[in-house]
Amino acid sequence: MPDLFLFIIIFIQYMVAVIDNNGKITVKDSGKTILSSPVEVLFLMEKERLEVFSADGNSLSKKNFLTIASKFDKKFEIKFIVYKDLRERGYRIKTGVMGLRLYPRGKKPGESESTHYIITISERDVLSVKYIKEQVNLARNLRKKLIIGVVDEDGEVTYYNIKEIEFDTKPSKKNRPKKPYHADFLEENVFIWDKDAVDDLFLEEYYGKQFLGDSLQLSLTEAAYLSEQGIIDLYKDNVKLTLDDFIDLCTRKVENFYNIFLVYRDLKEKGLTLKTGYKFGIDFRVYDNKDLSWATDRVSTTKIEHSKYLLQVFHISYAFKIPDMARSVRMANSVRKRMIFAGVDTATGNISYINISWTKL
Amino acid sequence: MPDLFLFIIIFIQYMVAVIDNNGKITVKDSGKTILSSPVEVLFLMEKERLEVFSADGNSLSKKNFLTIASKFDKKFEIKFIVYKDLRERGYRIKTGVMGLRLYPRGKKPGESESTHYIITISERDVLSVKYIKEQVNLARNLRKKLIIGVVDEDGEVTYYNIKEIEFDTKPSKKNRPKKPYHADFLEENVFIWDKDAVDDLFLEEYYGKQFLGDSLQLSLTEAAYLSEQGIIDLYKDNVKLTLDDFIDLCTRKVENFYNIFLVYRDLKEKGLTLKTGYKFGIDFRVYDNKDLSWATDRVSTTKIEHSKYLLQVFHISYAFKIPDMARSVRMANSVRKRMIFAGVDTATGNISYINISWTKL
Repeated sequence: MPDLFLFIIIFIQYMVAVIDNNGKITVKDSGKTILSSPVEVLFLMEKERLEVFSADGNSLSKKNFLTIASKFDKKFEIKFIVYKDLRERGYRIKTGVMGLRLYPRGKKPGESESTHYIITISERDVLSVKYIKEQVNLARNLRKKLIIGVVDEDGEVTYYNIKEIEFDTKPSKKNRPKKPYHADFLEENVFIWDKDAVDDLFLEEYYGKQFLGDSLQLSLTEAAYLSEQGIIDLYKDNVKLTLDDFIDLCTRKVENFYNIFLVYRDLKEKGLTLKTGYKFGIDFRVYDNKDLSWATDRVSTTKIEHSKYLLQVFHISYAFKIPDMARSVRMANSVRKRMIFAGVDTATGNISYINISWTKL
Repeated sequence: MPDLFLFIIIFIQYMVAVIDNNGKITVKDSGKTILSSPVEVLFLMEKERLEVFSADGNSLSKKNFLTIASKFDKKFEIKFIVYKDLRERGYRIKTGVMGLRLYPRGKKPGESESTHYIITISERDVLSVKYIKEQVNLARNLRKKLIIGVVDEDGEVTYYNIKEIEFDTKPSKKNRPKKPYHADFLEENVFIWDKDAVDDLFLEEYYGKQFLGDSLQLSLTEAAYLSEQGIIDLYKDNVKLTLDDFIDLCTRKVENFYNIFLVYRDLKEKGLTLKTGYKFGIDFRVYDNKDLSWATDRVSTTKIEHSKYLLQVFHISYAFKIPDMARSVRMANSVRKRMIFAGVDTATGNISYINISWTKL
C-alpha cells in the first residue's frame, strides 16, 4: 500500500520539458504548456520529477542540460547553486530577469508576495557601491529586501543583507576662540603646540592625541577638516598652506584621501566622531558622540573600542573584489560592529552609505 | 630633605646635547662626549633630563627639535612614536641604521644581548613579502626575533611578530586508476560526471564538492592540480585542454591564478589540504590531513572550519597595503587561526611562507 501511494505521487509530479535551439524551455504540466527557467528545470531533473528533451526529441542528461544552459547564460552555474541552496532550505523562488525573488517559507508564488530580491554573484566578480546602490533602489521600489548570494570557489553560498542607511544625528555647535590655532604639518602628522588646543580639541571633542604632554597630534583628515572650519591654520616649513595645498600633499601619501576627507566631513557634520579603523584594517571607526561622553579621563581616544560602525571609503564606481568585502563584513561581525561601505561621487560630493551584513536566511 | 634629594637626582641626570648643521648630535655626559640618536634625545628632552642646543648656541624647544629631526629623517615621527611607546613600557632600546634593537625588560644595552629587532613603519607605507623575508633573514643572522611596529593615523602602535615558517609534512601516495577522469570546464567550475570520482577524489582526498548527487564539482585550482598530476583530462566544449590552456583561461577569471596554483601545488605536495578561505575573505584555509580524517561522513568539506592556517597569496614583490595586512591578521586572530602570507617568485617557483601575528610586547 505505501509503495502504490508513492508511485502515484511520482506519476502525478513527473513532467516533461522541451528546450529549443534558442534555449527557451516549455514544460507540459497537466495539459498546460508553461515557460520555465533553466534553474527550475535542472532542480526538478535532479529531484527526478522532470525529463527534458531537445527540440529533435532526444532525452537530455543533467550533464547535457547543464552544458546547454551554461551556453545561454554564462552565470547559470552560479544562479543554479543559489537556487538549489534556497529550495533545499524550504523556500520557493521565482526567477526574474534581474535576480531571484524569494517567498516566505512555506508560501508559494501566488499565495503571497515575495519578500526578498536576491542577486547571485561569484566570489570572482567585482562590485561597486554604485551598482549595489542601484540594486538597493530597485529592491526598494519593488518593496523587497535586498540579499546578495555569493558563491565561492568551493560552491558554497554566503548570504548578505544589503541596505542603505542614513545618519541623521545632529551636531552640537560649540563656541570657538576667534583666533585659529597654529598647526605644523611635518612628514606624517600635524602638530599644535598649544596646551589650549589639547583642552579644546582633544578633551572636549576627541580630535587627535596628546603628544609630548602639552601638544596635540592630529591625523591628516582631522587637520583638513579643522582647517576648512577655520579652527586651525596649517603651516609647512613656516609657510601657510591653503586647504587645497594640504589636500594635495595628503593625496601623495594616501591615494584615496579626498574621498576619505569628504566622508569624514559629512559624518562630522552629522554629529559623529571618526577615528582610524587601522586595528581592524578599515578606514574608520565611527562613534555616536554620546558613546564617547564617559571617556573624559582618557589619554587617548584610540583606546575606546566601543564604536558602532566600521566604515570603508570607496569612490562610488570603484570595483572592489568580493573577498575584500567578505573579509570586512566578517571582521565587523566578529567584533560586533556594523560594516558600512561609503561610496563617494567625487564630482557631486554625494555619498551613499551601504550596510552589508551576514545573514543565514 | 626629600626636596634636596630630588634636586640631586635631577642634577646628576640632567645633560646637555648639541646638534650640528648636519643633524649629528653629541651629548656631554659626565665629561664624556657621546653620539646619540635623535629619538633618544627627544625622549630625554620630554623627560626633562636633557637640554639641546644648536651649533650656534641657541637652546632648542621640543617643537624646534622635532622639526629639525624630521628634516634629516622623513620617518623620524614614526620612529619616535615607537621608541617612546617601548621606553614607556619599560624596555631599553638601541637605535641602529636599520631599526630598533630591544633589550629584555630591566636590562640595559651592555648588560645583555638585545632579543628583538624592530622595524618601524607607518600604516600609510606599503610592504612586500620580499622585503619582509629580507628583514626576517637579517634578524635571523643577528639571532634576534623580528617585530614590526606599525604607527596608525591616530599615532598608536600595533606590534606584529614576523617569522618564516616551513611546512615539512609528507604526503601519502595513493594508487590511482590508470585512466584519467573526463572533466568538463563550464564557465565557473569543473565537473566530473562519474560516481567513482566522488568516492576517489572527494570522499578519500577532500577534492571538490558533490554536485547533483553523483557528480563532482572542482574548483579551478583543484582542477589545474589534478590535470597536472594526470588524474583528470580537462575538456571545454568537448575539446581537450592542455594545462597551459586551462591556466590561461583561469587567469582571465582570477588575476593572481598562476601564483595561487603554485602555492596550492607546493602545499599539496607537502601533504596539506587547501580549501577556499572565501568566508574569511582570504585565499585559502589550510588543513593538516590528520585534522580532516574524522570528517569522512561529511557532505561538504567547506563545513569543516577547524583549519590551522589562513593563507593569502601574493607575488613576492607585490606591494600590499598595511591596513590590508592588519585586517587579515586581525581576522585570523579572531577565528584562532595562524595568518600566512605566501610570496611567490613566479620566475623561479620559490615560495616564502611568512607568518604574521599580533603581539602585545
